[in-house]
Amino acid sequence: MTHPWHPIPGGISAPRGFLAAGVTAGLKASGKPDLSLLLAPEGAVCAGTFTTSVVRAACVDLCSERLAACGGHARAVLTNSGQANACTGDRGLIDSLRATQAVADRLGVAPEEVLICSTGVIGVPIPMGTLLAGLDPLVAALSPESGAAAATAILTTDLVAKQIALEADLGGRTVRIGGMAKGSGMIHPNMATMLGYLSCDAGVPAEVWQAMVRRAVDRSFNAITVDGDTSTNDTFLAFAAGELLGHEHFEALEAGLTAVSQHLAKAIARDGEGATCLIEVQAQGAADDAGARAIARTVCGSSLVKCAVHGRDPNWGRIVAAAGRAGVPFAADLVALWLGEHQLMAAGQPLAFDRAAASTYLQSDTVIIRLVLGDGPGTGVAWGCDLSAQYVRINADYTT
Amino acid sequence: MTHPWHPIPGGISAPRGFLAAGVTAGLKASGKPDLSLLLAPEGAVCAGTFTTSVVRAACVDLCSERLAACGGHARAVLTNSGQANACTGDRGLIDSLRATQAVADRLGVAPEEVLICSTGVIGVPIPMGTLLAGLDPLVAALSPESGAAAATAILTTDLVAKQIALEADLGGRTVRIGGMAKGSGMIHPNMATMLGYLSCDAGVPAEVWQAMVRRAVDRSFNAITVDGDTSTNDTFLAFAAGELLGHEHFEALEAGLTAVSQHLAKAIARDGEGATCLIEVQAQGAADDAGARAIARTVCGSSLVKCAVHGRDPNWGRIVAAAGRAGVPFAADLVALWLGEHQLMAAGQPLAFDRAAASTYLQSDTVIIRLVLGDGPGTGVAWGCDLSAQYVRINADYTT
Repeated sequence: MTHPWHPIPGGISAPRGFLAAGVTAGLKASGKPDLSLLLAPEGAVCAGTFTTSVVRAACVDLCSERLAACGGHARAVLTNSGQANACTGDRGLIDSLRATQAVADRLGVAPEEVLICSTGVIGVPIPMGTLLAGLDPLVAALSPESGAAAATAILTTDLVAKQIALEADLGGRTVRIGGMAKGSGMIHPNMATMLGYLSCDAGVPAEVWQAMVRRAVDRSFNAITVDGDTSTNDTFLAFAAGELLGHEHFEALEAGLTAVSQHLAKAIARDGEGATCLIEVQAQGAADDAGARAIARTVCGSSLVKCAVHGRDPNWGRIVAAAGRAGVPFAADLVALWLGEHQLMAAGQPLAFDRAAASTYLQSDTVIIRLVLGDGPGTGVAWGCDLSAQYVRINADYTT
Repeated sequence: MTHPWHPIPGGISAPRGFLAAGVTAGLKASGKPDLSLLLAPEGAVCAGTFTTSVVRAACVDLCSERLAACGGHARAVLTNSGQANACTGDRGLIDSLRATQAVADRLGVAPEEVLICSTGVIGVPIPMGTLLAGLDPLVAALSPESGAAAATAILTTDLVAKQIALEADLGGRTVRIGGMAKGSGMIHPNMATMLGYLSCDAGVPAEVWQAMVRRAVDRSFNAITVDGDTSTNDTFLAFAAGELLGHEHFEALEAGLTAVSQHLAKAIARDGEGATCLIEVQAQGAADDAGARAIARTVCGSSLVKCAVHGRDPNWGRIVAAAGRAGVPFAADLVALWLGEHQLMAAGQPLAFDRAAASTYLQSDTVIIRLVLGDGPGTGVAWGCDLSAQYVRINADYTT
């Protein structure tokens, strides 16, 4: 896709008028930064998408209810890392209300305009004294230069911070989009253990913005999988604030929104627990896009495919077998398959191929699996990572 | 469940009138037994359930078409191990037809009454000369005492053979049910297949038998998961042959059928690649059985739960998070959770519990996770195994 956007330095606070902060309040035993704040300009609209799990943290309920009640307007979001505040009973909601009230008091905005995301261990309440004591330094640290600090303070077991900023000239006006995210384990489509935030310094009507964000999330965060485990706290919040953009630029804006979301989603997949590479599965020739996406996601989520990639094993049988169980009909005798430039199957049957060269290709930092399922118009992409013994070690020893 | 069945020695050929055989034809490089035959008495009915994958081996198509065409009558099933005969194009069907014709000639039955199951590497055709040369010794070896040999010859990378036989007195008549199976389609990727076979020496009308088998499979083979990877060749075939059983005994018969199927299904889960224990997830109090089964299966298939069990980590948060993403509504604030006798949650919140004792419990050979989701009547069970670094090593290095 060609679009007018190019990268610029910074992240969530690169768009004009947005301020960010990240500090160490002491919520994590590790002593790493654990409290993050994003402040949007007055009049900001906010679109949110949330975990589809039946078991949702109180902060997720609070965010979705506040956004629904105020027609998609919000000014700030607080993120605490260390405790997920899920499965904590009535106390979960009370603590979320107290925290957002305290932030609202310090920012001079209405409590209904403040959102909260929590990430960390499930079932453990937030040490509220510690959190509240951290708010003054947090608010004092708000600045346009603190995007990286904010992106660092939302992490849990992630190895790297994930942020990006893009800029474009839209009809003579410079527009910027910024973003940050966290991921690691429990990553699966339908919003996984992931938090994502996006900022944009162009004004867009709330309903238009919500529809744009929904489509961008479908093509990014809902197209990644690390281990199939959707979490209790998954949240994506996208803020837009600024002079209203002409609707003739909406398509270009959505392209930028999608690019930022895909960058963050791929960064989450690449930083999956124990991962050594990013896997991109492209499904083409399906009856429709939804079917192609489902097949791409199933292949990308297959433990056997992930192990094969980790072992640099061009095991095409696992790929086509995973495609076959995606619940989407296709003609097995039309399937063609490529690993990078190496074609492994045609007309549903294996081809002779250079196994050593294909195995070498699987050592790439990004592995592209392309499946052609027939001659239909449907295409879809999914991103994931390989499955390593390190993933098992990380997750066998997490709380003990 | 109390039922009149008790175990007896033997397996698939323990029921009267059934003959079995297993020989080494040379299909496997390992030189292990690779050709298996089951012969049912005249008049046998056969119910089959097959992989739901779009990518099915030719032998699966042949079995389902023959059973449909003859109203569920069949006499014999040949199993070749070493090559799955999937993704082999037109040749796959031709070879399956040739093999069953050759068996039919030797047994003096119609070719339409002979079925075939193949397991092994996907995309590799069967060496037909080797298979055909093995048929005379195979037929010569048929006997009521060869159940164990047949159960061994269907294996691929399984560590142990899986067989069972039960006997009951049903209204003054002794009825026997036997069974054998091989390891889980989902764990043996290129060797991807779950095969199960059952024999019964009581006559049952075909439609009744098919309905019984469908229900038993739902409560057994459809309730296990190792890594979520359905294969191209998964097949379960259940034969019944003998004097017609009075319908007043159908319920007891179905209990035996279910017990044999569950024994084999659990044996497959326990023998999952790299597994060190069997995990049983019991879901209770759901709105209906289907919902409870879906929740049990999702928890059992969660990589994070499997890693936690492997690490002897009583991480209840992962269990309830997995339940929440099963796509089944329940009231999160009613959830209660037990690991064995250790209650970890009540009313949706964590309880104080003896972490060391719970961790010790997770060293059991069988780990039972019990989730109560509310006060509904729905119950369901699923079986699986833990996820170890050994699983990754096995599947990263399988073909290279």
